[in-house]
Amino acid sequence: MNRSIIEIDTTARTISTSEIPENQRLLGGRALTSALICAEVPPTCHSLSGENVLVAAPGLLAGTALSSANRLSAGAKSPLTGGIKESNSGGVVAHKLARLGVKALKIRGRRRPGDPLLGLHITTRGASLLELDHLRGKGTYESARLLRERFGEKAGLMLIGPAGEMRLATACINITDPEGEPCRNLGRGGLGAVMGSKGIKAIIVDDEGVSPALTPEVREVIRRFSKALKEHPVTGEKFARYGTTMTLLNVNGLGGLPTRNFSRGSFENAEAIGADTLHDTLERRDGMVSHGCMPGCVIRCSNKYVDEKGEAVVGSLDYETVCLLGSNIGLDSLDAVAALNRLCNDIGIDTMETGVALGVLAEAGLWNFGDAERAKALVQEIGTGTPLGRLIGSGCVACGRAYGVERVPAVKGQGMAAYDPRAIKGMGLTYALSPMGADHTAGNAIVLSVDHLDPDVQMEPVRDLHLKTAVLDSLGLCIFTGRVTLEQTQFVEQMCSALLGWKVSFAELLKLAQSWLLREREFNRQAGFSPAQDRLPRFMYTERLSPNDTVFDVPERDLESFYEF
Amino acid sequence: MNRSIIEIDTTARTISTSEIPENQRLLGGRALTSALICAEVPPTCHSLSGENVLVAAPGLLAGTALSSANRLSAGAKSPLTGGIKESNSGGVVAHKLARLGVKALKIRGRRRPGDPLLGLHITTRGASLLELDHLRGKGTYESARLLRERFGEKAGLMLIGPAGEMRLATACINITDPEGEPCRNLGRGGLGAVMGSKGIKAIIVDDEGVSPALTPEVREVIRRFSKALKEHPVTGEKFARYGTTMTLLNVNGLGGLPTRNFSRGSFENAEAIGADTLHDTLERRDGMVSHGCMPGCVIRCSNKYVDEKGEAVVGSLDYETVCLLGSNIGLDSLDAVAALNRLCNDIGIDTMETGVALGVLAEAGLWNFGDAERAKALVQEIGTGTPLGRLIGSGCVACGRAYGVERVPAVKGQGMAAYDPRAIKGMGLTYALSPMGADHTAGNAIVLSVDHLDPDVQMEPVRDLHLKTAVLDSLGLCIFTGRVTLEQTQFVEQMCSALLGWKVSFAELLKLAQSWLLREREFNRQAGFSPAQDRLPRFMYTERLSPNDTVFDVPERDLESFYEF
Repeated sequence: MNRSIIEIDTTARTISTSEIPENQRLLGGRALTSALICAEVPPTCHSLSGENVLVAAPGLLAGTALSSANRLSAGAKSPLTGGIKESNSGGVVAHKLARLGVKALKIRGRRRPGDPLLGLHITTRGASLLELDHLRGKGTYESARLLRERFGEKAGLMLIGPAGEMRLATACINITDPEGEPCRNLGRGGLGAVMGSKGIKAIIVDDEGVSPALTPEVREVIRRFSKALKEHPVTGEKFARYGTTMTLLNVNGLGGLPTRNFSRGSFENAEAIGADTLHDTLERRDGMVSHGCMPGCVIRCSNKYVDEKGEAVVGSLDYETVCLLGSNIGLDSLDAVAALNRLCNDIGIDTMETGVALGVLAEAGLWNFGDAERAKALVQEIGTGTPLGRLIGSGCVACGRAYGVERVPAVKGQGMAAYDPRAIKGMGLTYALSPMGADHTAGNAIVLSVDHLDPDVQMEPVRDLHLKTAVLDSLGLCIFTGRVTLEQTQFVEQMCSALLGWKVSFAELLKLAQSWLLREREFNRQAGFSPAQDRLPRFMYTERLSPNDTVFDVPERDLESFYEF
Repeated sequence: MNRSIIEIDTTARTISTSEIPENQRLLGGRALTSALICAEVPPTCHSLSGENVLVAAPGLLAGTALSSANRLSAGAKSPLTGGIKESNSGGVVAHKLARLGVKALKIRGRRRPGDPLLGLHITTRGASLLELDHLRGKGTYESARLLRERFGEKAGLMLIGPAGEMRLATACINITDPEGEPCRNLGRGGLGAVMGSKGIKAIIVDDEGVSPALTPEVREVIRRFSKALKEHPVTGEKFARYGTTMTLLNVNGLGGLPTRNFSRGSFENAEAIGADTLHDTLERRDGMVSHGCMPGCVIRCSNKYVDEKGEAVVGSLDYETVCLLGSNIGLDSLDAVAALNRLCNDIGIDTMETGVALGVLAEAGLWNFGDAERAKALVQEIGTGTPLGRLIGSGCVACGRAYGVERVPAVKGQGMAAYDPRAIKGMGLTYALSPMGADHTAGNAIVLSVDHLDPDVQMEPVRDLHLKTAVLDSLGLCIFTGRVTLEQTQFVEQMCSALLGWKVSFAELLKLAQSWLLREREFNRQAGFSPAQDRLPRFMYTERLSPNDTVFDVPERDLESFYEF
């Protein structure tokens, strides 16, 4: 089992490696990032100060070919929400860190904006800091290319773009996928700004092909889990065919597809950005319809979008981006969305928050919904750091404030994901109550078999989903495994037993998850959050959403009792 | 006694007048604005929505020639802090409203940004709405001139500039002084944005010379109070000679003068912007050294600053502005500060928040401390509504976020006043604990006879001062009367008795003030504030301030027990 914690202080330029304390040995992913943050970060510190700690931790099960189990969590006090943040992503880095025996990276300290940018290089020989100032201002695509030229094709990368260097509150951390494209994102909450404030441009992880021997028991659980995923109609086929956009027409049909700054729940041109259009476009153009973002993944929900000439644009075009940079800003062209997505990736900015911010600015009259060229120019401004670009990169709440817009779809300072909570009411509970802000991944209620319009049936299943998701996020399992792992929980138990020697029941894991969530919530309380901030913005309660003519009306008592486990 | 409440709904374009309920009869100023806001504004509403209510209320004693007793309070949910706000100011409006028998204006509703701007005209014949769209985008100086041309020289004005029309979170409401200059400001917390969101450009108040008969008892208290003010060395002489800048060199000597974004507590060129320089400059240029901003005021602390040619620049150049747009941004020229002050007034933006925001942006490297021309150009951008201008007009926290600055001197989203709380430690309690954010006027601790550097002696006198200030703010008495009213409290009792027929002791008033403060605090709690937000920004606890090498170190127990009356 992985044991080492690498601690970096970029003020002092020191690195130390230690063994993980016994009581953190069975923590990974989100459980570990949040535990370390709660233990070491003063809740009232400035998120860009040296006191904040950027923690990166592979999921507890990472490091083998176990399908969909190599997600990387990162966390810190968020520059966007001011609360605790965990964001997780696929890509190759968690797998490599785990193979190197690394449980977590803890990065503290602060570099001044003009100080030379640093890199952190992690190999079998340990970790070292190096200067990477020649990458200053460069996009993540060129940076990744140059880093792979220097450190080899097998090096996995975590890196930031100009947005992170500028310490913008919605900057993300990009992670390379198996082909080396920096397109997997620790997207939400501005972790790229925290990395930028530490002066680190890139973390290069090279496991040099180390490959731990696997026991027969481990090989067996890997085989049987892959088989179960492949046999399920969603994880075995639908994800591979349509990717995450398979949900788009469904959400549109439910009247919950954010359209033109959450002013409608259905988009008249939804078909044009739907799953069939994406699939057919990729097939016709010889793009990659199905692709695994992590080593070993058999679900393969991601894709590689290409333009009309078959040239690579971006991998992968996913639902949240297609909605928030599509219908939410009035764009009905996948080519236009893909171009924006590529640009955001290159700049290192969250596509989702950017889409919500652009929606707010269109409502303000700064630009017109549906103007793809202007949208592109606005996103480019983020990368060049104009005042307007910095404002957009500060998030939707900042944009709403600067332009006097009151309809700002955000909770705890973070823009909502691609489900209008007035129609997908369970998602409203997730947005309102997750310690992470309006982040769907904390409890992706769209997967629940409930009437999404019925306010009275959401709370119990959504709360349950928050706990289950926290378990998956800690183990490093993709939430898309849920169709199998949350239905046949013995798989999770067998994984823990085989890979970790941990005899634990799923029920016990859920119990642990309760304590993790309460701990995150306590951090937020100490940082200044009150229960009044566990609610949606007021217009969601008063402005009726077409076509279902509905407001957010989940009973107040359900919100109040959510954390009474 | 004044009895009517005028209620305006700008969505419906309706006006109704009613008699004030019995239980609000003895409330005025801040006590009344906060009572009405707590009763009628949903704490979680958006501050720019139709649900927010802009309340304006003359102090309880307003309407006579009683010296320094004609302040106007306005309040609403603040676009800047997200909490309750009261701001009060001199000028002529409170006096006129009181003479018209108006206890309060309550303005609710919302107009879209493109809707024609409205005016509210209040005379002896009642209140009416009219269109003022020809004033769209005009500065407050030209607007005031045009309005006085139309409505007469005796009309008192409350009006907003382009900043308020743009609904910027630090827009102020300007009030005309006796000469009709729109230079008295309801400055802090963005009340101008609330007025702008209601679509009201100006409120024109014309009392048509009504002059209530005064009893001999009232005339006697007016006379004796004037005499007492005149006999006190500070209110009788020092204020008239030096104005509020008399405190500048004192604060500089205490090491608490915010300099270059609160990075030092003393300014090398403090003399150049100090009281003697101001006084001598005004004398030499034939400016007005002493001037009363309100009818009847004998303190006359305000001035009219003129340029080298003797042309009017701005009235009045005051301490907070001279520091925050002076030493705090590295300017050592009163001419430069006065020009910025005039510009801010004309745009209708808070000079204090603008100074703090510019300090943050200079620290970010966007411009250089001390560059007067660039500072002027930046403030002009607020008025023209460029993205950078809108960002500056959104306040120092927004600027810090957009430019990745962690040293942002703000509490509850509001920039600090012109006292560094590491050296003037009692002021730190005021910033941290006032429901209004980092607003010195809630408890102007610099007047206390304590060792400002001793952390252990601040709490009791500051708490006491918060209560006393709340009493003055509710009666409409200028806090500068405190040298008399808070030392010889029988004056306050005599005023209440003579003017209101209210037999109340000062001790009883202080008791009432406790309940007012707790009610404001409860509004904030419901709006989402927690005790963790009742603290200074972290760098004030960790970064030592020269020349006293001190941090903010008032004991935590003092902050925790502040509201345990």
